[in-house]
Amino acid sequence: MRKGEQTKEHIVSQAAKLFNRQGFHGSSITDIMRETGLRKGGIYNHFANKDELALQAFDYAVELMRERYLQAIAGKTSACEQLISLFSIYNEIVENPPLEGGCPLLNTAIDTDDTHPALKEKARTALDRWRGLLRSIIRSGIDTGEFRADADSESVIIFLTAAFEGGVMISKLYDNSEYMRVTARQMAQYITTELLITSERTL
Amino acid sequence: MRKGEQTKEHIVSQAAKLFNRQGFHGSSITDIMRETGLRKGGIYNHFANKDELALQAFDYAVELMRERYLQAIAGKTSACEQLISLFSIYNEIVENPPLEGGCPLLNTAIDTDDTHPALKEKARTALDRWRGLLRSIIRSGIDTGEFRADADSESVIIFLTAAFEGGVMISKLYDNSEYMRVTARQMAQYITTELLITSERTL
Repeated sequence: MRKGEQTKEHIVSQAAKLFNRQGFHGSSITDIMRETGLRKGGIYNHFANKDELALQAFDYAVELMRERYLQAIAGKTSACEQLISLFSIYNEIVENPPLEGGCPLLNTAIDTDDTHPALKEKARTALDRWRGLLRSIIRSGIDTGEFRADADSESVIIFLTAAFEGGVMISKLYDNSEYMRVTARQMAQYITTELLITSERTL
Repeated sequence: MRKGEQTKEHIVSQAAKLFNRQGFHGSSITDIMRETGLRKGGIYNHFANKDELALQAFDYAVELMRERYLQAIAGKTSACEQLISLFSIYNEIVENPPLEGGCPLLNTAIDTDDTHPALKEKARTALDRWRGLLRSIIRSGIDTGEFRADADSESVIIFLTAAFEGGVMISKLYDNSEYMRVTARQMAQYITTELLITSERTL
């Protein structure tokens, strides 16, 4: 990687963490200079403005989370285990978050839904892809006879996603990961009740 | 009410809507001047700074939502109906939100959890009170024999709150209230399965 590309990637990765903690509106160019250790000119050499940097930083954050999701489901053989493992990635959201500041989708959605159409559009796309991942897991569970074929998958996906993101919010607000773990346990229970064909818990 | 008090209340109510849409960090004093129709001096005459105004605006927003909650449960005789009615208040979150910009608790929690300890503390207190309201409804449902006495109330409260807030986020992001309604329906289903003693749906 050439030096210019390295610098650019350094800026994007540091900005991703900064925006995830402080939000787009709460992060100034001075903050970005502090986090990257670069002068203003060194940043604007690579990005036209804060918007361009924020869009790339969000892509970076989403890609990082996507790797984390895929890692969570790798090696899990049942669809139920895959879902439960996926919904456990924020179980140490306070002590050991995948990305400092919490969930970038949640943070960006709330930060930009009434204020920044371009970032909002990116957050929508990220949520579409997340729903697609859940859909493919649930479908494969139905195909293998693990999950009920008559389950209302789309409603289940929305409900689980809502609970997952809300659990992050509560844990972050109280600085206590236990709320996320409580939420994840209830989600596992819900998956067992609503999706699994057998009434036995698999985990 | 004296004129000074009227002006102060006008500033607080307008600022509450502004902060709920744009966030604390995304709202400048210029924005506040535009929303209130006042000059800078007219605002600083009543508030020492943006922080002081934001704290009072959050109290105002929370009080407004609390009135909306109490209105939702008024006249509902069963605990199940009270919960379902409470969780329906954001069913038209896009077209007809109780407060412009979505849920002030969710917005303030995300906006300030890593950045503004005083507002974060207020958001925590608001979430404590909300949980207290759910707790009292569930307890009364247990007392009357409507809900299971062995229900894990505290976990149920966290899970329902997480789903409720996450549903708001999803609907706001997609500009589509249907996601909130889907979430609310799944919550009603969950309440029926986890809390109600009879297997019959009451709604």
